[in-house]
Amino acid sequence: MKAIQPTRGRLLAAAAALLVAGNAAAYDWQALPEKPPSPKHNPTTEAKVELGKKLYFDPRYSASGTVSCNTCHNLMEGSDDGRPTSMGVFGRTGPRNAPPVWNAAFMSTQFWDGRAKNLEEQAKGPITAGVEMGMGSMDMAVERVISIDGYRELFAKAFPGDSNPTTVDNFVKAVAAFERTLITPNSPYDQYVKGDKSALSDQQVRGMKTFNEVGCTSCHSGPAFNGPQMNMPEGQGFYQKFPTFTDNEYVKKYNLMADKGRARGTGKESDLHMYKVPTLRNVTLTAPYFHNGQVETLPEAVRVMGKVQLNKDLSKQQVTDIVAFLNGLTGEFPEITMPRLPSNPGETVVEVSGDAESVSAH
Amino acid sequence: MKAIQPTRGRLLAAAAALLVAGNAAAYDWQALPEKPPSPKHNPTTEAKVELGKKLYFDPRYSASGTVSCNTCHNLMEGSDDGRPTSMGVFGRTGPRNAPPVWNAAFMSTQFWDGRAKNLEEQAKGPITAGVEMGMGSMDMAVERVISIDGYRELFAKAFPGDSNPTTVDNFVKAVAAFERTLITPNSPYDQYVKGDKSALSDQQVRGMKTFNEVGCTSCHSGPAFNGPQMNMPEGQGFYQKFPTFTDNEYVKKYNLMADKGRARGTGKESDLHMYKVPTLRNVTLTAPYFHNGQVETLPEAVRVMGKVQLNKDLSKQQVTDIVAFLNGLTGEFPEITMPRLPSNPGETVVEVSGDAESVSAH
Repeated sequence: MKAIQPTRGRLLAAAAALLVAGNAAAYDWQALPEKPPSPKHNPTTEAKVELGKKLYFDPRYSASGTVSCNTCHNLMEGSDDGRPTSMGVFGRTGPRNAPPVWNAAFMSTQFWDGRAKNLEEQAKGPITAGVEMGMGSMDMAVERVISIDGYRELFAKAFPGDSNPTTVDNFVKAVAAFERTLITPNSPYDQYVKGDKSALSDQQVRGMKTFNEVGCTSCHSGPAFNGPQMNMPEGQGFYQKFPTFTDNEYVKKYNLMADKGRARGTGKESDLHMYKVPTLRNVTLTAPYFHNGQVETLPEAVRVMGKVQLNKDLSKQQVTDIVAFLNGLTGEFPEITMPRLPSNPGETVVEVSGDAESVSAH
Repeated sequence: MKAIQPTRGRLLAAAAALLVAGNAAAYDWQALPEKPPSPKHNPTTEAKVELGKKLYFDPRYSASGTVSCNTCHNLMEGSDDGRPTSMGVFGRTGPRNAPPVWNAAFMSTQFWDGRAKNLEEQAKGPITAGVEMGMGSMDMAVERVISIDGYRELFAKAFPGDSNPTTVDNFVKAVAAFERTLITPNSPYDQYVKGDKSALSDQQVRGMKTFNEVGCTSCHSGPAFNGPQMNMPEGQGFYQKFPTFTDNEYVKKYNLMADKGRARGTGKESDLHMYKVPTLRNVTLTAPYFHNGQVETLPEAVRVMGKVQLNKDLSKQQVTDIVAFLNGLTGEFPEITMPRLPSNPGETVVEVSGDAESVSAH
């Protein structure tokens, strides 16, 4: 089993996880809650969700008018974009793979390096990142949105107590409220742990045991397989060093040391190559893998994890079984109707500020 | 009234339109059909629509993996993108404004210059255009799509008689079948002409009369306000010269002569600056206006049309009334559920071939 690398303050939780993982028979397999959380600082309401849904799918408040939240976190798929790293406005690409929004409601921190304490804070990042939606500031995004007829009313309805409802804070609260509805319970795994022993195949059950025995659960624990985060206060993430074992072929092949992890933001030596443990829910839908999206298939991702995190050469059988088990983590996706986006009668909303390349014919 | 510029073979229809338009009282205002056409060469079926819907929203068969049909023809809005000209893969932009897909089922030709005879032929254009979805060929697009688990089955289900259902022809048939479901009947105008005289305001009724009297209906006639196209055989479009009157401020201001229109494709002198008469259904949702998207508001578009097509300086009142009438052409949008896009369990689908700009941090 790999050495746990707890961050300051996480020692107890990590030790508890180790103890549990040490005893395969007693391992506490947990189902995903069927209801998403609704935090006190932003209780979910129908009106917030309605506004947030429109904002989530509206590309018009990006610099080019072409990139929405859904562009990189496509809810029609695994809430990612299938790319190694995402492509934002004007064809620009960033350095990290798009994390899933499905079940992000259950994460206590957001982004690969956990630099946002909740979904509200997270929403501000891509909107203002030059390589994502590319708006100069959140204020500019709000300004663009409320220049569209209909949005002002939706803000007022979503935040009925506010004298000035069209604020940055309310904008991201609405987006977060919508995102908290995006959960995928009742996967075959969930059905299995709730008692339906036919929900997983024999191979999947074997994979589940292997997943625990080789040590995956020492980090990928809890109902979302992202560590004990679901029971942690907002902002207190569960971080691990990746890669832990560096003397192997994979580290160079997949360029795993180039990104400084949490240290990129904090500048701290102790945060070097530290990442939030990502959820494994719907992992089969979110290829390519890892923070840099350099691994194209799930079997290879499992092999790499075995080596660089547990220093184990997993057998072909072990890998196949674990992958079969991970396939059982794909949940039920709620049906989503497309929002009608507000429009200004007869007026252009997007003011285009540039493009990567223009041509004179097509 | 402006001089009609009929193309070869359209003389009779144009003459008939002229006669009708010449008598305002007798003008034949028509409602949009409530059922879309289902052509013999591609009868609409549920299975085709299901496949076509997935294809319409799937960005993975674009060169960057980020651009779908819906990117530029956004069904959550007016089925356009709000941009002067669209932005495709890698931030590239083309020369023309995205035409609406809503009610495109009722057009007898497609594209601004009518170079596709139906929706099937149209679908091939953007997929292979370097500045739109950027695939090298339709074969490559089909190959990419059927490399995704689940699509092969959907093709087989949609084309049950075919020994090899995964063809380019079937691909575009499915997309077209879905697009034919995208109609917006029962606008206030439709309700009005069907007998509900309260469906339009007094101003809108005044605008409707002005719209006819000043001569707009000499081209923008029929249920879709795109000329007699709905009753014309596939591929026989109704074209007009734009601009017709060139000695005015607008032609230079909005650069209306730069695009050769149909002549760009045909090379014929007689096709110079000829365009398909576009529908005015939902026109209030599709700013900015004209083939080059250079006019930002509908009132200005009406003023420009009055001058460059009818050589008339419309009064402020006339413009305001016509705009009010055009607002009455916004129909009822059917609720669309988001498709679940097929995935390859644990495998990357998009093979990214390049990007406009990469950065090392965000």
